[in-house]
Amino acid sequence: MTNEPKTVLIIGLGLMGGSYAMALKRKGHTVNCITLSKSSIDYALSRGIIDRGTTDIDEELIRSCDIAVFALYPHVFIEWIERYGNLFKKGAIITDVTGVKSAVIDKIQSLLPDGAEFIAAHPMAGRESSGVENADDSVFKNANYIVVPTEKNTEKAIYVCEWLGRELGFERITRLSVDEHDRMIAFLSQLTHCIAVSLMCANDDEDIYKYTGDSFRDLTRIAKINETMWCELFSLNKENLLAEIDSFMKQMTKLRNAIEYDDESTVKSMMRRSTERRCNFDKNPGV
Amino acid sequence: MTNEPKTVLIIGLGLMGGSYAMALKRKGHTVNCITLSKSSIDYALSRGIIDRGTTDIDEELIRSCDIAVFALYPHVFIEWIERYGNLFKKGAIITDVTGVKSAVIDKIQSLLPDGAEFIAAHPMAGRESSGVENADDSVFKNANYIVVPTEKNTEKAIYVCEWLGRELGFERITRLSVDEHDRMIAFLSQLTHCIAVSLMCANDDEDIYKYTGDSFRDLTRIAKINETMWCELFSLNKENLLAEIDSFMKQMTKLRNAIEYDDESTVKSMMRRSTERRCNFDKNPGV
Repeated sequence: MTNEPKTVLIIGLGLMGGSYAMALKRKGHTVNCITLSKSSIDYALSRGIIDRGTTDIDEELIRSCDIAVFALYPHVFIEWIERYGNLFKKGAIITDVTGVKSAVIDKIQSLLPDGAEFIAAHPMAGRESSGVENADDSVFKNANYIVVPTEKNTEKAIYVCEWLGRELGFERITRLSVDEHDRMIAFLSQLTHCIAVSLMCANDDEDIYKYTGDSFRDLTRIAKINETMWCELFSLNKENLLAEIDSFMKQMTKLRNAIEYDDESTVKSMMRRSTERRCNFDKNPGV
Repeated sequence: MTNEPKTVLIIGLGLMGGSYAMALKRKGHTVNCITLSKSSIDYALSRGIIDRGTTDIDEELIRSCDIAVFALYPHVFIEWIERYGNLFKKGAIITDVTGVKSAVIDKIQSLLPDGAEFIAAHPMAGRESSGVENADDSVFKNANYIVVPTEKNTEKAIYVCEWLGRELGFERITRLSVDEHDRMIAFLSQLTHCIAVSLMCANDDEDIYKYTGDSFRDLTRIAKINETMWCELFSLNKENLLAEIDSFMKQMTKLRNAIEYDDESTVKSMMRRSTERRCNFDKNPGV
């Protein structure tokens, strides 16, 4: 990939699409967008985050892009490619920000015409708010970006996708297989959201904010959740997520029973293990 | 309480004791300490955090204090009062930072001589590190401070304890009964630590830091845990903690089963409930 400016098309100008647009405009690329809401386009134009935007299927915008980034719900992404995927030019690289991969990649790769290539990516950054008005590309700094190639991908497309991650400002760029990604994300992201939701559902005292420390606040930050998106993500990665929930519940039950039966040695050894692992985590600063 | 400088004795100069000392010295009070480690005293003296410190039971330091703050493990606190509680002067106010109350308050109140009064408090601030070297009174800013009076306490002692909370720089000072406190803390603090520990124990992949986003990092910050202290705190509040774990596991199981059986309406309604409650939480900024 040379350093010449690219023409990037963002499909879906919400929090993530808007943050991508912001970062890429900053780097001198041409950023166009197709999105449902006229007001999102007006906002992005007024802030100089995009060059052009439309709520229509503008064939010229689709044909002219070097790179297309899809920031849509998974099923909307698949429907879009089904209807309009044939409009991409030969050599166009299509990527995404979707939180699950196995349910998406095969379908998208089989739907695209010869010459346009889909390479999946997962930016591990976000916010508990939505909409382009909350877009902020500073969340990519110090964050992880996972490229998820399949055997159908060319080295060139993988290279472009990794280049895009660096161009967006991500700190660490890694590769995972589709299965590795979906297992990893079930543990690191989907399970943690299930925990935060269950915790908030477990107590209806409206006064808890008066008594809490930082730990509860940090742990439940992600309890503010877009139920349409996350319900779809959970469903599309159900098998992995159920396995991770069960594995977590098994540890929770072990700790619970050790507390009940005054088995100090088990309680303490679990605490030592968690401390050691979390310290290992902290040895990798900045990300 | 007038604004004249007090003589405060800190017993146990670790992270919390040191942070108390730092805040109180800043306000012009005389701060003395009794602690096990000579090096902690040397450190605190060299930073000007305390006026005097000793590893001995210095009767003059004990007799001269207006306010004593105990920052010890619960059983050490009780043993200390058993042996030396009779040395406090008439009118001295004794307080603490202990994370559980029912197991401590009755014993301490019955062990103290007439005239010295114990009023329990729980500063909801801390760090995942220990030792006076990590003391930092800025953690009290924007934090909650809970006073836990019993019917044996005088209005004067409650007033002094609340004054101390303000003097330390806490943002919100509240009162809870012993039972309310121990139930509240089982949910807000002990359960969240159990979750973080169980989550770290559920996965032994050393590479997860390469792929994670902020949510997992925030959720497991408290997985670095002092196993001696927390094991004792869990044990002393066992009944409440087990009830909170069971209540959380019930919600987690409900969500898990709804995911397994594609019951979208239950998944989404739990997500909406958690979002609503967490938003209510955020309406109370700064604390």
